[in-house]
Amino acid sequence: MRLNTFTDYSLRVLMYLGTDLDRLATIAEIALAHGISENHLMKVVQELGRGQYVETIRGRGGGMRLARPAGEIVVGEVVRYTEADLALAECFTPTSQCRIQPACQLKAILEEALTAMFLVLDSYTLADLLIQPSRFPWLAGPHPVVPIRPESER
Amino acid sequence: MRLNTFTDYSLRVLMYLGTDLDRLATIAEIALAHGISENHLMKVVQELGRGQYVETIRGRGGGMRLARPAGEIVVGEVVRYTEADLALAECFTPTSQCRIQPACQLKAILEEALTAMFLVLDSYTLADLLIQPSRFPWLAGPHPVVPIRPESER
Repeated sequence: MRLNTFTDYSLRVLMYLGTDLDRLATIAEIALAHGISENHLMKVVQELGRGQYVETIRGRGGGMRLARPAGEIVVGEVVRYTEADLALAECFTPTSQCRIQPACQLKAILEEALTAMFLVLDSYTLADLLIQPSRFPWLAGPHPVVPIRPESER
Repeated sequence: MRLNTFTDYSLRVLMYLGTDLDRLATIAEIALAHGISENHLMKVVQELGRGQYVETIRGRGGGMRLARPAGEIVVGEVVRYTEADLALAECFTPTSQCRIQPACQLKAILEEALTAMFLVLDSYTLADLLIQPSRFPWLAGPHPVVPIRPESER
């Protein structure tokens, strides 16, 4: 039982963006900081954009930043959004073939367990996960820091 | 995020064995009842034997049964036993490459979520999952029912 890599990377991207709100970050920079391939990150960032967790500023000097304050990004929501499959067992899926499903108690118990898990995850926001950049000197890659420029200058 | 098939099948085997404590069941019979391959089930039953959840009586007229009363088989314990990987994210593994791990708060939050989940699963036993055979007529396969015979007769 493991969260998928997509969720793991999504949380890492959000944590990275949350550590420095004063500038735009690039995919290359995050890929280097976390040691993750840019291709992987590209898809993660696209999805986070679709979910309105991240916003991307295009053009020269562009990059990305959090679309909302870190304190408004609930960890449980992100996990629900990025996990393609929260079906703990076959009986959670509409195509389940399990023959004892109609009266089995297992599904209800697993659902209760999942609810308990999300109660915890829903009680934390990205702000609770956030780390101070100074505690992570290796997050500062060799990529130039791109300050956020006013729209008019772009 | 999904329990592995091994856990799913283990719970189904235990539920099957728990529905009728007066006789020994065979792998062929459980495979047929649940529509699962015998090969898969063989490994599941071996592992459940190793964990002392199931005991096997060898020889003619042999089969298997629960090794303990259903009320003493805790669902959370079975899931911990059968899940090969309870590492919710990379940072749970000893070989983790995550660069922000040393001070990241995510692991602690995921651990708390996992604990909450197991608190629920630990509050139920197999007896809570058990179904009455009469509610599952399709569990009665065409395999002959093998009554438990006294040791002396085997």
